[in-house]
Amino acid sequence: MIYLDNAATTMHKPPCVTDAMIQALTSLGNASRGAHEGALQSNRLIYRARRTLADFFGCPESEKVIFTSNSTEALNIAIQGTLRKGDHVVTTVLEHNSVLRPLYRMEQECGITLDFTPADARGCIDYEQLAHLIRKDTRAIVCTHASNLTGNMVDIARVGQLAKEHGLLLIVDASQTAGAVPIDMEQMGISILCFTGHKSMMGPQGTGGMCIHGEIEVEPLKEGGSGVQSFLTRQPREYPTRLEAGTLNGHGIAGLLAAAEFINETGIDVIHTHEMALTRRFYERVVHIPDVTVYGDFEATTRSPIVALNIGDLDSAIVADELAYSYGIATRAGAHCAPLMHKALGTGEQGAVRFSFGYFNTPDECDEAAEAVEQIAQRMHQ
Amino acid sequence: MIYLDNAATTMHKPPCVTDAMIQALTSLGNASRGAHEGALQSNRLIYRARRTLADFFGCPESEKVIFTSNSTEALNIAIQGTLRKGDHVVTTVLEHNSVLRPLYRMEQECGITLDFTPADARGCIDYEQLAHLIRKDTRAIVCTHASNLTGNMVDIARVGQLAKEHGLLLIVDASQTAGAVPIDMEQMGISILCFTGHKSMMGPQGTGGMCIHGEIEVEPLKEGGSGVQSFLTRQPREYPTRLEAGTLNGHGIAGLLAAAEFINETGIDVIHTHEMALTRRFYERVVHIPDVTVYGDFEATTRSPIVALNIGDLDSAIVADELAYSYGIATRAGAHCAPLMHKALGTGEQGAVRFSFGYFNTPDECDEAAEAVEQIAQRMHQ
Repeated sequence: MIYLDNAATTMHKPPCVTDAMIQALTSLGNASRGAHEGALQSNRLIYRARRTLADFFGCPESEKVIFTSNSTEALNIAIQGTLRKGDHVVTTVLEHNSVLRPLYRMEQECGITLDFTPADARGCIDYEQLAHLIRKDTRAIVCTHASNLTGNMVDIARVGQLAKEHGLLLIVDASQTAGAVPIDMEQMGISILCFTGHKSMMGPQGTGGMCIHGEIEVEPLKEGGSGVQSFLTRQPREYPTRLEAGTLNGHGIAGLLAAAEFINETGIDVIHTHEMALTRRFYERVVHIPDVTVYGDFEATTRSPIVALNIGDLDSAIVADELAYSYGIATRAGAHCAPLMHKALGTGEQGAVRFSFGYFNTPDECDEAAEAVEQIAQRMHQ
Repeated sequence: MIYLDNAATTMHKPPCVTDAMIQALTSLGNASRGAHEGALQSNRLIYRARRTLADFFGCPESEKVIFTSNSTEALNIAIQGTLRKGDHVVTTVLEHNSVLRPLYRMEQECGITLDFTPADARGCIDYEQLAHLIRKDTRAIVCTHASNLTGNMVDIARVGQLAKEHGLLLIVDASQTAGAVPIDMEQMGISILCFTGHKSMMGPQGTGGMCIHGEIEVEPLKEGGSGVQSFLTRQPREYPTRLEAGTLNGHGIAGLLAAAEFINETGIDVIHTHEMALTRRFYERVVHIPDVTVYGDFEATTRSPIVALNIGDLDSAIVADELAYSYGIATRAGAHCAPLMHKALGTGEQGAVRFSFGYFNTPDECDEAAEAVEQIAQRMHQ
């Protein structure tokens, strides 16, 4: 199988990830619960993972790196845990349902109000329009770092500057970018960064987290055992315990740590350059195929390694099935949990076929995939 | 290291668990996202895990097996997702903070009321007293299956009968019993069973879940991508999607499935008999040591494989450290996140040293541990 669905999950992990998990599965106790060697080994691992990820994302305090089961959980905690009745939120039509649904819920049940920054036909937002949506009662900007559908990136540093000027929280969904492009919360002005472990970070599923910058009060979604301060009737207020109830996924975090170390050793710039070359190579071929429509902004200096396209008016699911079953090429079709982006692109009915590239893909795989698209497009006319 | 902290997490997993996770780490796509072989393999695995766990726990509908990151998350969903203002809840002093803190939160913030079934000096609850706490406005009984401190089990079938008679929800915390003793939701009258994967189930950390019996409306804590019905503004209402936002921990679930299959193949009765023999063997030796106080009910026909004790008035943490560093024996000291149980036993200050046995422990290890307790107790008098 040629796996080009890395934006859903990276199927090929660096071997060190598996090795670290095997090691963890035979040696870890329960972090923060007990003082024997097994528990301490787990503590040390978790501590090292927090430190590594804090450095990785430019989060000044490693105790404000919170582990969650995926970025959806992180986004739910960030959104539900900070926004309150009367708050106005500016977001964008690029967002994934992991941002939209928590926001809609808060709008319907908790009295927040929402405004959406629109996108143009290429799926790009207008920063002037975003700025104009900010009001007196605006409390936060909630914004993806890159569209999971088009791969277009948002200039977060620019949005961060706006947020700073207006004293707003900036909550960023880095599901598509963490591990794929450098992120520095401090420099970019991000208040809360939400990331997943199993996509470009190349770690295992069941991992992810959020990094909190500075003094932000985030209320937990869940309370429970904390291993410390057991006689408090409520979750302790200190980070990270405050947002981490119950046993952490030590085995998964071991894999995530190994993955982050792999990226550091390889160089995130090396990874990004490789993935951009693959993306560009594939794009340059498919964009010239008659009847193929490619979505997104390929003039941008940087983007995430995604090419979304349609062939004529063929249902995207039919194209993806054909790619999978006749060519052994794994892509993703359909709506991609990004309903407003589809509306902006006019692909609500058709969906789109998304090719997403990862560090372990090769130029040959790109060529094979482009060749397959060409053949399917040709067959349309037979 | 002699690992006797299995009630915190089982450090020794069946080899098939590691094998299944290695396999998953090199072959799984993202479940419910895409239709290529990687995604389908993930779908099939998750489906098989739901079926296996539904059978394992006697849950009539496998789509009502919900995966969570641990039992704390499951308990938070069960408690926050069902209880509403004005509801009265009966619980017990045996509960872990993963039950207590969500209940206290609902009491403080959402207007539920709570009553606690007390325990006697052995840590046993009185079922008559529990029954007397039920009022007209009682909506649910929230109850552990076994105390994580003493190992005493609650007769859930009896509580289930009570719940049925009064038309109450019965939410059970099976953190200490899932995988250790047979559980049948149907027979025991359990409405929602919450379990963890990394303790007696012998699966990886980061796994767990809840099983819902019949027509119960449980509201989600989190909303987000569901891979289906992307144009709905809110989380779809169908189980399991309703309670599973974002990418599942496919790699962890692969390990959990292998662990459940291991238990099925070995026989849960065989495992329980082995663990009870180890518990009894250790108990019989330590109970006769002067200055040793053992907590819990060892007359009961069944219990979970735990022996909690103190030596004189020695701080439990000092004893556990001595066991760890002089004898290489891993136990857990302190409060065990069970504050009300400690109050009932009068061990709030001292804590207790908990020895908890697992399937991979041996009689020799029990003897060594008992010998160590004896030596520490003797040294007290020197």
